[in-house]
Amino acid sequence: MKGRFLAVDWGTTNRRVFVIGEYGTVEHTERDDHGVVKVGREGFVQEAAAIRRRLGDLPMLCAGMVGSDRGWVDAGYVPCPARIEDLAAALRWIEPGRIAIVPGLSFEGDDRADTMRGEEVQFLGAVAAGQVPSTALLAQPGTHCKWAHVADGAITRFTTAITGEMFALLKDHSLLAGQIDRAAEDDAAFLAGVERARSPNLLAHLFGVRADVLLGRRSREESASYASGLLIGADVAAHAAGASPFILAGPELGRLYARAVAAFGGEATIVDSHAAFVNGVRLIWDLVQ
Amino acid sequence: MKGRFLAVDWGTTNRRVFVIGEYGTVEHTERDDHGVVKVGREGFVQEAAAIRRRLGDLPMLCAGMVGSDRGWVDAGYVPCPARIEDLAAALRWIEPGRIAIVPGLSFEGDDRADTMRGEEVQFLGAVAAGQVPSTALLAQPGTHCKWAHVADGAITRFTTAITGEMFALLKDHSLLAGQIDRAAEDDAAFLAGVERARSPNLLAHLFGVRADVLLGRRSREESASYASGLLIGADVAAHAAGASPFILAGPELGRLYARAVAAFGGEATIVDSHAAFVNGVRLIWDLVQ
Repeated sequence: MKGRFLAVDWGTTNRRVFVIGEYGTVEHTERDDHGVVKVGREGFVQEAAAIRRRLGDLPMLCAGMVGSDRGWVDAGYVPCPARIEDLAAALRWIEPGRIAIVPGLSFEGDDRADTMRGEEVQFLGAVAAGQVPSTALLAQPGTHCKWAHVADGAITRFTTAITGEMFALLKDHSLLAGQIDRAAEDDAAFLAGVERARSPNLLAHLFGVRADVLLGRRSREESASYASGLLIGADVAAHAAGASPFILAGPELGRLYARAVAAFGGEATIVDSHAAFVNGVRLIWDLVQ
Repeated sequence: MKGRFLAVDWGTTNRRVFVIGEYGTVEHTERDDHGVVKVGREGFVQEAAAIRRRLGDLPMLCAGMVGSDRGWVDAGYVPCPARIEDLAAALRWIEPGRIAIVPGLSFEGDDRADTMRGEEVQFLGAVAAGQVPSTALLAQPGTHCKWAHVADGAITRFTTAITGEMFALLKDHSLLAGQIDRAAEDDAAFLAGVERARSPNLLAHLFGVRADVLLGRRSREESASYASGLLIGADVAAHAAGASPFILAGPELGRLYARAVAAFGGEATIVDSHAAFVNGVRLIWDLVQ
């Protein structure tokens, strides 16, 4: 607990800045659209200076796509198994002692590999702060849903599924554009999609979203929930069938995943992902003081 | 064999017109972009008149999306099991004896439903003309890949997978846009994707296309073939594992599917889909004379 600092969750399109107090309290937060794409490679020094002018000339710890090859500097990946201490030891310092970027995580198995950048702070923050058990299955749903296996406080392996991105692709650009015209609800149509996902044939199930409406078997208005059920059902079937994962998510997406987990015989616990991020950056920062 | 006529394969974006001779010979063909979307609901009468002015004042048999709710008139669906005689009996006549539209097919099972519109002419044409056995598994890959089970000359059930559309969505709009920048080849990367598809976790495998390149496990240039292998592999795994299907396709796509079928222990036979269409319209037209 060694002093106040700024934490920046700097993603592709959005940015959230926290002023973290000595005891891990969040003294101030702000959110804007100055994500990595908008800021551009040359803009990070000025952006960091502007944050300090607004919020105080404090040390700054950045996480997320700011550490990618499209960000401020490439902060690399820490290989699994990885603990929060490994993140702290591998910080990429921009100004020694003053500005650092958290590295991502990589997993390389015999038959597959994976990467994450940003979610590692929440996962390992939740683990190290005791928000979740030190051995557990964790998930962060979203554009890319991350499933992380934690054992004795370390992420040993993880898998990314493009579940949320796929929903957006279908909604905006596919044969289902127009038919998927709203957010999904955890209703009967959603659960029907989850049940359908027990048979692993996503490419055919997705055409069925349209065929069912053409043949009058389901209303057009149910398409969004049903398609979401197909995707989240496929995600849970592959990664958490019968398991009881801890899900770091907001309430809407958390509820959908919890329903799908229950349909597959498990029980999900929703965990506050903002608290997990703050826990993560506070612990990392304390480790390098 | 009762006289010459015009056959129009009238799809969403393209149109192909055939002048069919008395013995099923193709006397002339032309292809243009006057598909259903471009023509619009009010334009079909004039378009048909223009075709007749160019190619002769002959009877006209139309198939494809021209018979959908966005086409000239909705020609409905014939339920499975369906033979070529059922298509002929259910033609939607615009001018009696002069202009007709072929209906689509529907399948409604206990747990799923499906539709096709356009492919039924090729499938049942190939069956009725003896291009394929009267009991077989047939496929028409493309934007939407159709898998049809034929028994004693009738399509008894079929399944649509959005395989080709998914490749286009990923190529044009996803995190893989830019990384998938070419057509797929039936190379080692394609076969690696097919092998990966044995485990049914498409949403995760697709993120792996990116992670493998980020971690240096596969070159960016191999991404298109690998992603295609993931998708076609998933399609074949779900619909033709160990089977020996007859595939109505052009040479490039036919070769990719044949390689995936072989990887799953079957043997594919490529069938000329243009000949199948001509056989289909000739047989349907003869049945209504």
